[in-house]
Amino acid sequence: MSKDIVKPSILPGFMELIPTDQILFNKMLDIIRKNYEKFGFLPVDTPVIEKTEVLLAKGGGETEKQIYRFEKGSTDMSLRFDLTVPLARYVAGHYSELNFPFRRYQIGKVYRGERNQKGRFREFYQCDIDIIGNGTLDIINDAEIPSVIYSTFKELGFEEFTIKINNRKILNGFFQSINIEDSASVLRAVDKLDKIGIEGVEKELEDFGISKDIVGKIKEFISIKGNNQEILSRLRELEIDNEVFIEGLEELTTVIKYVELFGVPEDNYAIDLTIARGLDYYTGTVYETFLDNHLSIGSVCSGGRYDDLATHYTKQKLPGVGICIGLTRLFYQLMEASIIKSTDNSLTTVLVIPMKGYMDNGVEVTNELRREGIHTQIYLESGKMGKIFNYADKLNIPYVIVIGQEEVENKAYSFRDMKTGEQKSLSLEEIIKCLK
Amino acid sequence: MSKDIVKPSILPGFMELIPTDQILFNKMLDIIRKNYEKFGFLPVDTPVIEKTEVLLAKGGGETEKQIYRFEKGSTDMSLRFDLTVPLARYVAGHYSELNFPFRRYQIGKVYRGERNQKGRFREFYQCDIDIIGNGTLDIINDAEIPSVIYSTFKELGFEEFTIKINNRKILNGFFQSINIEDSASVLRAVDKLDKIGIEGVEKELEDFGISKDIVGKIKEFISIKGNNQEILSRLRELEIDNEVFIEGLEELTTVIKYVELFGVPEDNYAIDLTIARGLDYYTGTVYETFLDNHLSIGSVCSGGRYDDLATHYTKQKLPGVGICIGLTRLFYQLMEASIIKSTDNSLTTVLVIPMKGYMDNGVEVTNELRREGIHTQIYLESGKMGKIFNYADKLNIPYVIVIGQEEVENKAYSFRDMKTGEQKSLSLEEIIKCLK
Repeated sequence: MSKDIVKPSILPGFMELIPTDQILFNKMLDIIRKNYEKFGFLPVDTPVIEKTEVLLAKGGGETEKQIYRFEKGSTDMSLRFDLTVPLARYVAGHYSELNFPFRRYQIGKVYRGERNQKGRFREFYQCDIDIIGNGTLDIINDAEIPSVIYSTFKELGFEEFTIKINNRKILNGFFQSINIEDSASVLRAVDKLDKIGIEGVEKELEDFGISKDIVGKIKEFISIKGNNQEILSRLRELEIDNEVFIEGLEELTTVIKYVELFGVPEDNYAIDLTIARGLDYYTGTVYETFLDNHLSIGSVCSGGRYDDLATHYTKQKLPGVGICIGLTRLFYQLMEASIIKSTDNSLTTVLVIPMKGYMDNGVEVTNELRREGIHTQIYLESGKMGKIFNYADKLNIPYVIVIGQEEVENKAYSFRDMKTGEQKSLSLEEIIKCLK
Repeated sequence: MSKDIVKPSILPGFMELIPTDQILFNKMLDIIRKNYEKFGFLPVDTPVIEKTEVLLAKGGGETEKQIYRFEKGSTDMSLRFDLTVPLARYVAGHYSELNFPFRRYQIGKVYRGERNQKGRFREFYQCDIDIIGNGTLDIINDAEIPSVIYSTFKELGFEEFTIKINNRKILNGFFQSINIEDSASVLRAVDKLDKIGIEGVEKELEDFGISKDIVGKIKEFISIKGNNQEILSRLRELEIDNEVFIEGLEELTTVIKYVELFGVPEDNYAIDLTIARGLDYYTGTVYETFLDNHLSIGSVCSGGRYDDLATHYTKQKLPGVGICIGLTRLFYQLMEASIIKSTDNSLTTVLVIPMKGYMDNGVEVTNELRREGIHTQIYLESGKMGKIFNYADKLNIPYVIVIGQEEVENKAYSFRDMKTGEQKSLSLEEIIKCLK
């Protein structure tokens, strides 16, 4: 073949890992999945491609510009840009086959043609859980979600992280009480607090035409600090006579009580009245999760409660609560900040190296190890021992077994710990005992 | 919101499962992955979208018609239609970061806009392994692959299946020896033997303008039967003086010897001289795997040896051997034929049901069970007991624990086996012992 060589490159904004990093990435995916399953969430796997009219039923905005949309034949189709819209479509479509409350998890890739910049990806994994009620969904569900976040991040190896909890009704009720109509805009401004600071928020609010007096009240409100019980007391003391506010405060009080009961340590969750979550569809509880020592990474797990999941696809009322971990971006940031490292990762425990003429014995030993469930690779090529040791080293394979004449005659094999360089002569039974 | 309701449908040719089926599907995916890892294969996860010029570097044919191709901005991109082309691109692009022989597995979705028909999917999972050598790759690798197939299908629950093995060089050499030039066309005809029968093959060959005499020889050749050693003997007895044939026969002899040594039982593999694999790039060993009692399903796992993986992307010579399981289609067929069933599938072991007023105790019991690693769901809604039992039943959750006044006072909980209906009063310790 004398064809031209095509440069083997991928599109910008796509993450592709070398195997040692991929092992670490998969380990994190597995931990997330295992935790979701431990809490009774059921797996769902929806198509990556959907009908555009279905994906965009909610319509326009930023999403429509970012979406990968195309035609095949006469069909207008698009790649999913999140897992929430497919969930809504799924629950509406399979309504009669599902049992409510429906707990589902989905882990999969989604696509957004965002502007290309460092740390932003156009293809990325989302790891979602949601609990969907049929008509109603008890508020205690909102308290169980943080216990899933806690369990997951704890097992991912994090100790110091805080799940920040708020309730949109408290914000909305408060805004109503001070006669602010466009609470969505105010919420969006408040949501930027971390990025633009209190003065930035003040300025944005004044730009909306809100009076200095009212801006002062907002500033005072979002400055309420203290431990969870203190904040709840302060909110009660405001004696705001607004139904929505009162409902939100009741909900938050219940959620905080049960988050504790669900075993989340006090250090790992906190009410934060400035958390609003920009997305329109949250209506009650909202969450964001921060690594205490790496706040600049932003929220590593967010979500909240919504009144109705699938208004665009069904008349059934389907309230729900859920969260999402954007693992691709998180993984990238954790690697960049050296919070995680992929050194020493290996799925393979041992490399069997048969010397020239001892392939048959090598295969037999390999079979025996695999029968014992030990992840084993056999080196089938010819080559110098130093080169093969180097190969094992680069793959982080912790042990090698060398098999040659001496080994076969004495039924004792050279068993080498690649980390320490220590080499012992052991029987196969002893090696298996060692490796297990 | 008074928007119109959009029908929550998916595109034709896409598989979407309800959770009980998805659990079974995922269980199969996990078994495949676990087996691939046990044999030392490393994970790779390439983007679903690639540059069209990269994906189609090999060029045209059926593939180009089926591909999902589109533009975003000025970029011509396409969805991957298999995992082999991305592997070639990956190995060429990451050449200096990889260690050879490079064993990789990839499990992911691929896309082909095939004509819509029952059992054919436009989005489907492929589960691939390949071993890539740098310049050379020992023939014994070709013998290890069937042991991976064996281990995987055995653990998937199959007993009676046959890995059919052949070597393209034997076929090519034989065709050369009878002066057939366009062996590719003849191979394609032979490959259809299962579908069109021996007469169909004869007819196709005659249509190519091959003489009756030669067609007779081909017929005789592909009719060679017997056990593996008998077939090898028969091939030797042909005394065909053709280098390619002799090389193929030597390779096949070695492969068969080592397949046995790698522990594959004789019942589970067989030389089959009619297996050719339509794909052009196989150059040596080829495999197809059949469920003995369900031959109509066709091959459930196929692959083979190729001389050079990435000719379009690099000048490095990269020989390899690999196989693929197309799980989406296989799952569909196994379900259709009732070979697998999704009844009784549950990831959740127990449902905790707190009676009115006993939510706090319910949460505590739930925490305790989860701490013990038991997959536990807590029922947080209000509702009649019969309805909740029915919920557990529909989700196939095998056990429920009911917590009410009596239970809390006596520290003994109603523990119900949902299958037998048996209900016992047990302490939490006893329940944990039971569930573990």
